[in-house]
Amino acid sequence: MKNYRLTVRYDGTRYSGWERKADRDTIQGKLEAVIMRMCGHEVNVIGAGRTDAGVHAEAMTANVHMETGLPVCEIQKYINRYLPEDICVTEVKEVPERFHARYHAKGKTYIYSCYIGNNKPVFNRKYIYAPDFIPDPDKMKRGAEYMTGEHDFAGFCTNSSKKKSTVRTVDKIEIKISGSELRFEFHGNGFLYNMVRIMVGTLLKIGKGEMEPEEVNHIFETRKRSDAGPTAPALGLRLEHVDY
Amino acid sequence: MKNYRLTVRYDGTRYSGWERKADRDTIQGKLEAVIMRMCGHEVNVIGAGRTDAGVHAEAMTANVHMETGLPVCEIQKYINRYLPEDICVTEVKEVPERFHARYHAKGKTYIYSCYIGNNKPVFNRKYIYAPDFIPDPDKMKRGAEYMTGEHDFAGFCTNSSKKKSTVRTVDKIEIKISGSELRFEFHGNGFLYNMVRIMVGTLLKIGKGEMEPEEVNHIFETRKRSDAGPTAPALGLRLEHVDY
Repeated sequence: MKNYRLTVRYDGTRYSGWERKADRDTIQGKLEAVIMRMCGHEVNVIGAGRTDAGVHAEAMTANVHMETGLPVCEIQKYINRYLPEDICVTEVKEVPERFHARYHAKGKTYIYSCYIGNNKPVFNRKYIYAPDFIPDPDKMKRGAEYMTGEHDFAGFCTNSSKKKSTVRTVDKIEIKISGSELRFEFHGNGFLYNMVRIMVGTLLKIGKGEMEPEEVNHIFETRKRSDAGPTAPALGLRLEHVDY
Repeated sequence: MKNYRLTVRYDGTRYSGWERKADRDTIQGKLEAVIMRMCGHEVNVIGAGRTDAGVHAEAMTANVHMETGLPVCEIQKYINRYLPEDICVTEVKEVPERFHARYHAKGKTYIYSCYIGNNKPVFNRKYIYAPDFIPDPDKMKRGAEYMTGEHDFAGFCTNSSKKKSTVRTVDKIEIKISGSELRFEFHGNGFLYNMVRIMVGTLLKIGKGEMEPEEVNHIFETRKRSDAGPTAPALGLRLEHVDY
């Protein structure tokens, strides 16, 4: 069977996340149903990672082994025709047999958007979180410096496993304000469950003045989830890019 | 009673248009309910115009006579707190007693957006129309030249009145492509019912090659709705600005 790499854009609002679940709508589930219909055999769409319920993707990457007589452009057209309007395959490429979207992913970029204007974000309200305070960007930038690098992120993870390593490298955290949008950009070699949202929640807590930037080190030392800030809402987060 | 000018941004997707209707959700209806609650007396929110069901506004202008002890910034906060998340008052200003949002409007800017990319518009799909063909921009620009100026737009109007004048001046029609968006910008002294959407539908028909640019003159001559193109879908349209 041939192996194909898919790039997938989706609005996660009405989905229970990426991962297939028996009785819920998920992105993986929708993709597999459409692809099975196309090629007439069972398929397993392997994502580069799993996004939580309500999280979006500008470019999730996945791979799937399948047998179809169609050229890639026709595969893409077929899939998009039958996918709902909030999921779109933006690229289909044939890749070597052994390419694996998760194992071969070298890094990921996530973007988290906050609305900090005076009004309400009417048109992009499903994709931006509006905190009820204006966080101090300088404090957050100092907090982000403490987070950058290789650390044990156990405290920044929901239900961290005691068996698996919780050490990750976040090589870039950029905090930018443009107009009424405050945008966090994270790049790292891997992220734990809820990790980006907890980093954002912690940075916002620092920006609100309820935690000092240097306390980030304390969270790395205790490895306790309760020492970090709250999990920022899913709607502000999107997976921007996966690199290989 | 004092007179206030409101600037209103809204996502028209789930509304039956601007104008108050007894048993339907409308923008005017929502605004009046919240303002009545605030000042404890009946109010009439006068819009600069009426947008159709499903049409959006970046900046609709309205005025309302009301008695309230609150300063303008508190009025704005109160209204926004009780309005649903898809409507926002972006400015409140006290204006002279005789200011009338409709009578004093000198011009309006409307924007109509089409998606012409290879994929599907996932994130802004509620605000952009995706035709199933790529229209020729040069042909549409030539068609737009014929539409610009003072004309009898009866043929570009749904249910035009035989008594009222259907002469309007459209002084600017700009057609721009940026990335996967094709954007029409209209400025004129007034627009008839469905007029912008019928102009867009006609321009798209010209861009598809099913009508010649110079046939626009024929629609002005016959004044027949059936000679113009179809009414473009509401979702692509937004009222951008009202000038006084």
